[in-house]
Amino acid sequence: MRATVIYGAGDVRVEEVPDPKVEAPTDAVVRVVRSCICGSDLWPYSDMPATDRGKRIGHEFLGIVEEAGSEVGTVKKGDLVVAPFVYSDNTCEFCREGLHTSCRNGGFWGSKHVDGGQGEAVRVPQADGTLVKLPHTEDEDLLASMLTLSDVFSTGHHAAVTAGVNERTTVTVVGDGAVGLSAVLAAKRLGAERIVLMGRHEARTNLGREFGATDVVSERGEEGIARVRELTGGQGTHAVLECVGTKPAFEMGVGSVRAGGTISRVGVPQYEEGPIGPYVFRNNITITGGVAPARHYIPELMGDVLDGKYQPGKVFDRTIGIEDVPAGYQAMANREALKVAIKF
Amino acid sequence: MRATVIYGAGDVRVEEVPDPKVEAPTDAVVRVVRSCICGSDLWPYSDMPATDRGKRIGHEFLGIVEEAGSEVGTVKKGDLVVAPFVYSDNTCEFCREGLHTSCRNGGFWGSKHVDGGQGEAVRVPQADGTLVKLPHTEDEDLLASMLTLSDVFSTGHHAAVTAGVNERTTVTVVGDGAVGLSAVLAAKRLGAERIVLMGRHEARTNLGREFGATDVVSERGEEGIARVRELTGGQGTHAVLECVGTKPAFEMGVGSVRAGGTISRVGVPQYEEGPIGPYVFRNNITITGGVAPARHYIPELMGDVLDGKYQPGKVFDRTIGIEDVPAGYQAMANREALKVAIKF
Repeated sequence: MRATVIYGAGDVRVEEVPDPKVEAPTDAVVRVVRSCICGSDLWPYSDMPATDRGKRIGHEFLGIVEEAGSEVGTVKKGDLVVAPFVYSDNTCEFCREGLHTSCRNGGFWGSKHVDGGQGEAVRVPQADGTLVKLPHTEDEDLLASMLTLSDVFSTGHHAAVTAGVNERTTVTVVGDGAVGLSAVLAAKRLGAERIVLMGRHEARTNLGREFGATDVVSERGEEGIARVRELTGGQGTHAVLECVGTKPAFEMGVGSVRAGGTISRVGVPQYEEGPIGPYVFRNNITITGGVAPARHYIPELMGDVLDGKYQPGKVFDRTIGIEDVPAGYQAMANREALKVAIKF
Repeated sequence: MRATVIYGAGDVRVEEVPDPKVEAPTDAVVRVVRSCICGSDLWPYSDMPATDRGKRIGHEFLGIVEEAGSEVGTVKKGDLVVAPFVYSDNTCEFCREGLHTSCRNGGFWGSKHVDGGQGEAVRVPQADGTLVKLPHTEDEDLLASMLTLSDVFSTGHHAAVTAGVNERTTVTVVGDGAVGLSAVLAAKRLGAERIVLMGRHEARTNLGREFGATDVVSERGEEGIARVRELTGGQGTHAVLECVGTKPAFEMGVGSVRAGGTISRVGVPQYEEGPIGPYVFRNNITITGGVAPARHYIPELMGDVLDGKYQPGKVFDRTIGIEDVPAGYQAMANREALKVAIKF
């Protein structure tokens, strides 16, 4: 079968790899119907050291169960299923607490001996705990929205939930990538009435407005902070959803959050140390978030996606076939595409 | 009257200063009965640049109202009152949210034109919002415990509350100073059954055990982290209450907290940047806390102090008169005294 393999920065290839098969009784094999490229895939695409052997990549997919191991009970051959971007058993103490990303038997797609999601099929470990069954559909828009449960919509939701967003909180979303826009939608869904989106790509911020952003701030750094403060009577917003991962993005968050407020980070931090000194302390600013336990959120978010109330799939602005994946990476890296779907 | 003035590192003097008087109709003048020296006073005592004019110092006191301005309604001449370590109006939007430390009309004792608390009397701005009336008593132990409402017990409580401590959380307290020990007591009060105290001064950790610590870890750094993990099945504790303020203390917190857990900082950070990179993100660790809104907590904590159920005043191990304050600073700096009370 064909699958995506990354060999280093700028070097993504689509290659013939062995067909996956059930190896453990808790495995399933899923024939992928839709996958996509993530903003976080662009980090290794920008800085991974070159390797000879390459590494499978991709962590968002939905597809049809082709084979299920003997101990798999919740999904069966022929089911349409979505996989969260981390697999997990859904039974350990961390999963029971809703922190599936710390599952004792879980892990990341594309890690050692584990398939990546940007390929024709995937062996899914801990299939019972990982996969969530969806109704069959041919509706392209619905499939796209279902696919976002795998990562970006769940991740945006994690940012909003951990930041305590509700109808009384004002919100700043830092970043107009797919996660940032999903965070806008998630904040709106949780009742936020004032949502400031920090971003400068008009097509994206327009989608942000459609998703619920009430204000767009295109300035960055100190100017961006000043603008958010100007919009909020000098105070900043109760919640900041930091959806980029760079240190300047976090610093904008610190500058934009209200005293007593919360910055939730869902962009993978590209820094080891950050500004959490006396200013953060004096203002009782909370820093939270992290890698989103998508599996925990899918059951809650699914209903609103299936009935069309929310359409997070609008973040996809390009659909390609598997052979075009290298070009898809390039398009996202060049910011020509917001988020690229892969159709099989 | 006599009051404490700091002129620089190591240079604390007791001097004659003008008697305070009501300046605004919202002021009161309080004749101090008990004050004390705080661990945080030791930061300027260790590193404040020398000045000619000096600066009033001290932020914890209780005393008798001597005069109340015409607009003061909640306390009157003759009342015994306690002042939290930040004054506040108790009516602005931040106060209404319980964040009195961000009060729009509040500020710190010892700042410009505001008296310090280590003196015979204090002009209290925003007296209605700041002061809390207490029953008169001659009981030395009760007076000591009442005095801790001003800062250390409220601060320990803030750490425990913001870290979400309850009967289901395991807790690590970093630091066996007066705030650390108060945090142990506060965690116990909120129901925590497993409280690991990191500290190496036996007299202090013994008081920690009396306050509710179930384990004491005297090791520091990586060894200390390994010990906490060993005590918790490799996981770390749900909550870490960081009561020191140094970067190594925060790093121990990061190493000792469980995935999905919370580090609450109540020690004033002596660093601008801290480790909040990929490890913190991957493990969904929350960093919270800050300068404690003691005024918000006093009404809740007061009952348990007044009826003797909790005796946070045990952190005082030395009582001195006002003229001995310089020696009191030295004793705390030398770690000969845990916390020094000043009796007037």
